[in-house]
Amino acid sequence: MSAAAGIDDVRSAARRLAGIAVETPLLRHPDLDAAVGGTVLLKLENLQTTGSFKIRGAYNLMSRLTPQQAEAGIVAWSSGNHAQGVAAAGAMLGIRTAVVMPEDAPKAKIARTRRFGGEAILYDRYTGDREVIAKALAAERGAETVPSYDHPHIIAGQGTVGLELMRQAAEMSLVPDQVLIPCSGGGLTAGCAIAIKDASPLTGVHPVEPAGFDDTARSLLSGRREINASSSRSICDALQVATPGNLTFELNRHLLGDGLVVTDAEVRAAMRFAFLNLKLVVEPGGAAALAALLSGKLETRGKITAAIVSGGNVDTELFAEIQAG
Amino acid sequence: MSAAAGIDDVRSAARRLAGIAVETPLLRHPDLDAAVGGTVLLKLENLQTTGSFKIRGAYNLMSRLTPQQAEAGIVAWSSGNHAQGVAAAGAMLGIRTAVVMPEDAPKAKIARTRRFGGEAILYDRYTGDREVIAKALAAERGAETVPSYDHPHIIAGQGTVGLELMRQAAEMSLVPDQVLIPCSGGGLTAGCAIAIKDASPLTGVHPVEPAGFDDTARSLLSGRREINASSSRSICDALQVATPGNLTFELNRHLLGDGLVVTDAEVRAAMRFAFLNLKLVVEPGGAAALAALLSGKLETRGKITAAIVSGGNVDTELFAEIQAG
Repeated sequence: MSAAAGIDDVRSAARRLAGIAVETPLLRHPDLDAAVGGTVLLKLENLQTTGSFKIRGAYNLMSRLTPQQAEAGIVAWSSGNHAQGVAAAGAMLGIRTAVVMPEDAPKAKIARTRRFGGEAILYDRYTGDREVIAKALAAERGAETVPSYDHPHIIAGQGTVGLELMRQAAEMSLVPDQVLIPCSGGGLTAGCAIAIKDASPLTGVHPVEPAGFDDTARSLLSGRREINASSSRSICDALQVATPGNLTFELNRHLLGDGLVVTDAEVRAAMRFAFLNLKLVVEPGGAAALAALLSGKLETRGKITAAIVSGGNVDTELFAEIQAG
Repeated sequence: MSAAAGIDDVRSAARRLAGIAVETPLLRHPDLDAAVGGTVLLKLENLQTTGSFKIRGAYNLMSRLTPQQAEAGIVAWSSGNHAQGVAAAGAMLGIRTAVVMPEDAPKAKIARTRRFGGEAILYDRYTGDREVIAKALAAERGAETVPSYDHPHIIAGQGTVGLELMRQAAEMSLVPDQVLIPCSGGGLTAGCAIAIKDASPLTGVHPVEPAGFDDTARSLLSGRREINASSSRSICDALQVATPGNLTFELNRHLLGDGLVVTDAEVRAAMRFAFLNLKLVVEPGGAAALAALLSGKLETRGKITAAIVSGGNVDTELFAEIQAG
């Protein structure tokens, strides 16, 4: 197994994030239990600072930069949630941040990145390559880059979600039989899988991806990093990568059970359920695991199933359209 | 002081509600702390079963009915949240429920009351008297009534919110300097004030009411139960009573600090803050205490202030309109 990140790295990240990241609630709600015929625990990372879990990895990495690196500022690329995490961590640490973002990213994500003091540089998602643009800019500025998933400190930081989840479940005297995690590049999934398997080796960990972006599910089956069709489209703006990360997949291939795939319609239904029954604002990508649960993608009857709600940054107009059905 | 309800009654209610009511999160979020320049703790009763705190009092009372009373069913009157609490408690306890509701109550509240198995009987808020209608119906059926605030078991049940809040704050090593509570008839306020003052006699407890329905604020000043103008209108459908309860005011007059009053515009702004920053769905009345906080109705700088978000049952259309600003 890769030594990209291990449980000690996740624990170290947790110490660094104490007082920085919100210890988000692990919610048990009877409407959820009733809907799936089992016990459900929902980890509410939409209530996290910046509206998603991304502050955890970004702060963990950026707080470890040398003074010289911090002085030069950092460059990142992101569809929006990592951008906010990076910008907010930069504001906390006094590090100048620039983020390359797709011009069709949710307006709220771009606006909030700027509000946290980040420089947002927009590009066309379907013609440009954000990583190329970002790396050229970093070279020009002599700045470090902060990747959104494929880095040991990012993986370890996101893994603190899983560490908290298992501890909070234990405080309720519960051990999840399975945990569902929205998956894009695989950083949250890999980090959480490390922490979950350390606490409970028999707990199944399942990545959940949108249809058309099921690269991790297919890669887990084939054993090599599969690539999505470039024509794919999804309502889940936060879960659109071309292929799993290198480091993240090396971890995930050993740690994960089968990948689950959800449609846009299932994601929309989950967002309506969250609004009507749970009173939570969940963004499309953040609702993927909840959507898998509610649409019966795996057996939940009589089981204890945890699911991560990974973010809540959705534009007002899209949210209203989805709620109107 | 009235012996309507005391701390032992609140503790007894908490034992009865274990495993029935959700132990809702007490959220600390940096965006809130930053907004008020102090420490904020938000008690999320919008995440409660039925979308508001009302299940607590309803279940506490209804679970104490004799078998004969339970067999005859119960009748209640409510603008919507108490209706859902009563209907859900009835479903849990196998008690038939009927609730008299204003015909202009949020559609979601009426629909959800019926979904929980409650019989919803609609009337005109501005010409009919729901209490008279409900009591006539109860007499006709030989059924007990379940008042929405002015009853010792209701007050004690709602007080479990305050009991949880103070315990959860203590687990964070915090003691609130002040607690803000959305106030209508005063049941939640009175019950919570009992629990808060028991845990920390120096903590200030402030009711928050919508402009035009500030009967408790004015009654606290005059020392007698003041009556609101019948022409009053407010976006807070859940916080519209004519005058404080008899039992609740007898408690509240001894336990509360000054009452705070918020405008519709301040409530709308708080609902937008909750959506954009906290990713929470809050109904107008449920946002009253948050609105008082965010609009600076009392000194929060350097203090620890807790606020109760009492409900999240808002119609999709109104929510979208408010978010669109």
